[in-house]
Amino acid sequence: MKKLTMLEMERISTEEFKASTKMPLVIVLDNIRSLNNIGSVFRTSDAFRVEAIYLCGISATPPSLEIHKTALGAEDSVDWQYFADTHEAVRTLQQRDYQVMAIEQCQGSTMLTDWKPDFHAASPKGYAIVMGNEVKGVQQSVVDQCDGCLEIPQYGTKHSLNVAVTTGLVIWEFAKEYFEGESRE
Amino acid sequence: MKKLTMLEMERISTEEFKASTKMPLVIVLDNIRSLNNIGSVFRTSDAFRVEAIYLCGISATPPSLEIHKTALGAEDSVDWQYFADTHEAVRTLQQRDYQVMAIEQCQGSTMLTDWKPDFHAASPKGYAIVMGNEVKGVQQSVVDQCDGCLEIPQYGTKHSLNVAVTTGLVIWEFAKEYFEGESRE
Repeated sequence: MKKLTMLEMERISTEEFKASTKMPLVIVLDNIRSLNNIGSVFRTSDAFRVEAIYLCGISATPPSLEIHKTALGAEDSVDWQYFADTHEAVRTLQQRDYQVMAIEQCQGSTMLTDWKPDFHAASPKGYAIVMGNEVKGVQQSVVDQCDGCLEIPQYGTKHSLNVAVTTGLVIWEFAKEYFEGESRE
Repeated sequence: MKKLTMLEMERISTEEFKASTKMPLVIVLDNIRSLNNIGSVFRTSDAFRVEAIYLCGISATPPSLEIHKTALGAEDSVDWQYFADTHEAVRTLQQRDYQVMAIEQCQGSTMLTDWKPDFHAASPKGYAIVMGNEVKGVQQSVVDQCDGCLEIPQYGTKHSLNVAVTTGLVIWEFAKEYFEGESRE
């Protein structure tokens, strides 16, 4: 099978991206330390048209050479905002009637496989996921503020995935619901 | 909601992992440059009980401090093998009746959402996915050797995802089929 050329991939420009309809999903990064991980989240968010990334606390913001190395320009297409305090980011989203889910292994958390966002309900107006620091995870006080916890079922020795990979899995599940629903209409 | 403690996560030991039944899935890394990406693939493979990782060409192998930093010990639980030549890795798998899919955007590639591995068929005995170099992707000659191409549908300006994220998405889709099938029986 022949690999597609860049031209054949029908990539859209940054201007077309800005004008396109986005998925109603905001990614909240709660004190992410690695610029590599932040850049990778930008790149995945570009691929699936995420509405915005909220960079909180110690999470670095563009412009940054290190973020650019993994984002490869996606930091210019995807909208982002900085919040010194993650709690304020969550509050802002909830005031806009967004359902905010912490991605954490909690007592009674919803498995990602059971999560079904509803794009036709009057409420919530959209969704947000909170991704935690590489070592500490999402702060317990932020978890308490969220509307629920989403968990990725795991079967290994670690029970923890890289934060950029985890974000990718949740965005992917959301995108499948969103774009498949779109093609059914 | 209360975050689970390490103890409550019921993580298994490296010995228990070695003895556990694995998913019939081998990850072939075709000249992956970043140790960070290799470490992350080990960690995801541990989480979902991947059979083995085949490290090919310039892909570094454990023990490596840099791989350890992202694998966090998963390089000790997940089986791996080194092949100087990716073609040889693919040939070995096909001789064992494994279906080998390149993860690439190709003419006529199968969308990941349409891929349904069959765990009850007499053939293939298992599956393998080939992940390409960060810049060049999977070598065209390796693509030619594979049994097909799997593609992740994308909607952004880049049409490329980080290789560790992409590997995560494919492993996740495979694991959903595998573990959900298991719980249905």
